[in-house]
Amino acid sequence: MHLIASHPYAGTPVGEILDNTLDTNGKMVRASLVLCAGAFGPDYETKEDRLSMLAAMVELTHLASLVHDDIVDEADFRRGKPSIQSKYHKDAAVYAGDFLITRVNYYEAKEHLNEAAAVLSQTIERMCAGEIGQAICRYNAQTSIAEYLNNIKGKTVELFKCACRIGAQESGCSEDVVCKLEEFGENLGLMFQLRDDLLDFTSTKDVMGKATHIDFREGIYTLPVLAARDLDKSGKLLSIMQKNKSESLTDKEISETEKLVIDLGGVDAAIMEIRSCQSKIEGLLRELPECKSTSLLSELVSKLAI
Amino acid sequence: MHLIASHPYAGTPVGEILDNTLDTNGKMVRASLVLCAGAFGPDYETKEDRLSMLAAMVELTHLASLVHDDIVDEADFRRGKPSIQSKYHKDAAVYAGDFLITRVNYYEAKEHLNEAAAVLSQTIERMCAGEIGQAICRYNAQTSIAEYLNNIKGKTVELFKCACRIGAQESGCSEDVVCKLEEFGENLGLMFQLRDDLLDFTSTKDVMGKATHIDFREGIYTLPVLAARDLDKSGKLLSIMQKNKSESLTDKEISETEKLVIDLGGVDAAIMEIRSCQSKIEGLLRELPECKSTSLLSELVSKLAI
Repeated sequence: MHLIASHPYAGTPVGEILDNTLDTNGKMVRASLVLCAGAFGPDYETKEDRLSMLAAMVELTHLASLVHDDIVDEADFRRGKPSIQSKYHKDAAVYAGDFLITRVNYYEAKEHLNEAAAVLSQTIERMCAGEIGQAICRYNAQTSIAEYLNNIKGKTVELFKCACRIGAQESGCSEDVVCKLEEFGENLGLMFQLRDDLLDFTSTKDVMGKATHIDFREGIYTLPVLAARDLDKSGKLLSIMQKNKSESLTDKEISETEKLVIDLGGVDAAIMEIRSCQSKIEGLLRELPECKSTSLLSELVSKLAI
Repeated sequence: MHLIASHPYAGTPVGEILDNTLDTNGKMVRASLVLCAGAFGPDYETKEDRLSMLAAMVELTHLASLVHDDIVDEADFRRGKPSIQSKYHKDAAVYAGDFLITRVNYYEAKEHLNEAAAVLSQTIERMCAGEIGQAICRYNAQTSIAEYLNNIKGKTVELFKCACRIGAQESGCSEDVVCKLEEFGENLGLMFQLRDDLLDFTSTKDVMGKATHIDFREGIYTLPVLAARDLDKSGKLLSIMQKNKSESLTDKEISETEKLVIDLGGVDAAIMEIRSCQSKIEGLLRELPECKSTSLLSELVSKLAI
C-alpha cells in the first residue's frame, strides 16, 4: 500500500486512524486479478509499474468499501481486528473510507490513468447501487432471486470484472481477450460471493472463526434462502422470514430454519449455481491463451470450489 | 447538475434516492467561486464549458460531504428537507455520498481534467482530515483555538480555496493571480464558517429557521466558546463544558452559557476574527485586476459581513 504510506498525517490522531485502516491482512484477491489479467498482454513487462499502481487502487477501493460497509452493518470486527467504526466510531469511519477513495483518485489523476479511472469510477457507482439495492431489500421476504443476483453483481462482482478489465487493457490485450478476462472476473466474483453467502448460512462458528447466519439475522436473504422459499409450497419459510422482520429469532429457530432450507433444496440450488460459475470459468481458461498467470488463476478457482 | 441527470438508475428505487440527493436548493457558493475565479483568466471565454464542469464537480463534492456529514451528525434535516440519512437510513446515505464523489471522478477521468482532479482530491483528503479532527475534538473541553481553526480549515476552507484555484488555473491565470484568488477563497471560507458557527451560537430559531446551539450541545466547541474559555479566569465556562460531556444541558443552562460567553468576550473575539478576514479579502480584491466577476465577489463578501 505504498500509495498511502506517505500520507501527510503521520504521527497525528488522524494519521493513527488512517494507519489503522491500512494495517490489514486481506488476501488481496482483487489486486492479484489485476496483475494476473495483465500478464495476458504483450506490454506486461513494460507496464509492471502501472499495473502495480492499478492493483493497489483496486485493493484500496475494496478496502474503502469495507470501511463503509462496516458502518452500515455496525460490524465490530473486520478481518479479525476491531473495525474502524467500532474502534474510532462511525464518524471516523465515514471519512477514513472517503479518504481512501480520494487517494485512489489523486493517483489516477496524477499518473494519468484516465482509462482505468473511468472504468473504476463506473464500477464504484455500480457497487454503491448494489449496496443501496441490498439495503432496500433488507427484511423483504418477497425479494426475488433476480434482485438478489443484481445486488451481489453490484456490490461484489463489478470490482472483480473491473480488476480483470483494467489489468488486461493496460497491458495491451486485444478487446477479445479483455472481454474474456472480464467474463472470467464476473464468474469468479459471482462464485466468490455465492460461496461466501452459502458458508454464512451453512457453516459453523468453529469452522469459520466468526459468527454465522449473520445475513439471515440481519434480513439479508441470500440464494439458499430465496431458492428454498421459491420451492416451498407450504409457505412455512416465508412466514419465518416475515417473523424475522419483527423480532429476533432464537438460536433454535435459526437452526430449524437452516434445516428447513436444506430440506427444501435451497443449499443444493446454491451449490449448483456455484458449480455453474466454476464450469464457465474453466471453459474461459481453456479459451484464453496460455500465460504465466494461467496456473495461478486455476489455483484461485479451485480454492473457491465447493 | 447535468453531470448526474443521466444516471442509469432513473425510475428505480436506487434512482429515487439519487434524485432525492440531487434535488437540493443550495446557494451554490462554491460553484460560483469556480466561475468567478475563472473570469480573471485570459481563456475564460474558450474554457466556459470546462469551467462549468469544474463548478459542478466542486458543488457535487460539497453535496457529497453534506450527505456524509448528516450521517455523522444524525441530522434529520438538510436545507429544509429531510436528510438522506433520515429519509432512507444511513445505509443509503453512505453509498449515495460515495456515488456522488465517484461521479465526479468519472467526469474528471473522462474529460481529462487531471490538473483540477489532483487539486480536488487533495482537497477532499484535507476535508476528511478536518472532519476526523473535529470528531476527535468532540466534547473535549481542552480543545485549543488552533485545533478548532485547523479543523474548520480542513472541513470548509479547503474547498473554497480549491474552487478558486481550479477556476483560475483552468482559465490561464498567472500563478500570482491564482495564489491571490486562492487566498481570497481561504479567507472567504474562513469568514463563512466563523459566521456560521457564530450564528449557531448567538442567533435564535426564529431568525435562523433552524434550531440553534446545535454545535455546543453536540460537543463541537467553536470560536466564541473557546475564546471565552481562554478569557475566563474563574474556570466556570470550562466546568460547564465538562458537564456538557456527561449530561445534556437544559435550555436554561444553554441560555446561561450563551450569556456567559458573551460577557466573557467570546462573541466579540469571533466578530473580530470575521472582520479581520473581511478586511484581508477587501485588500485582495483591490490587488486583483478588475474583471467582470469583481462586483459579484464584493457582493458575496458583503452578504457575509457581520
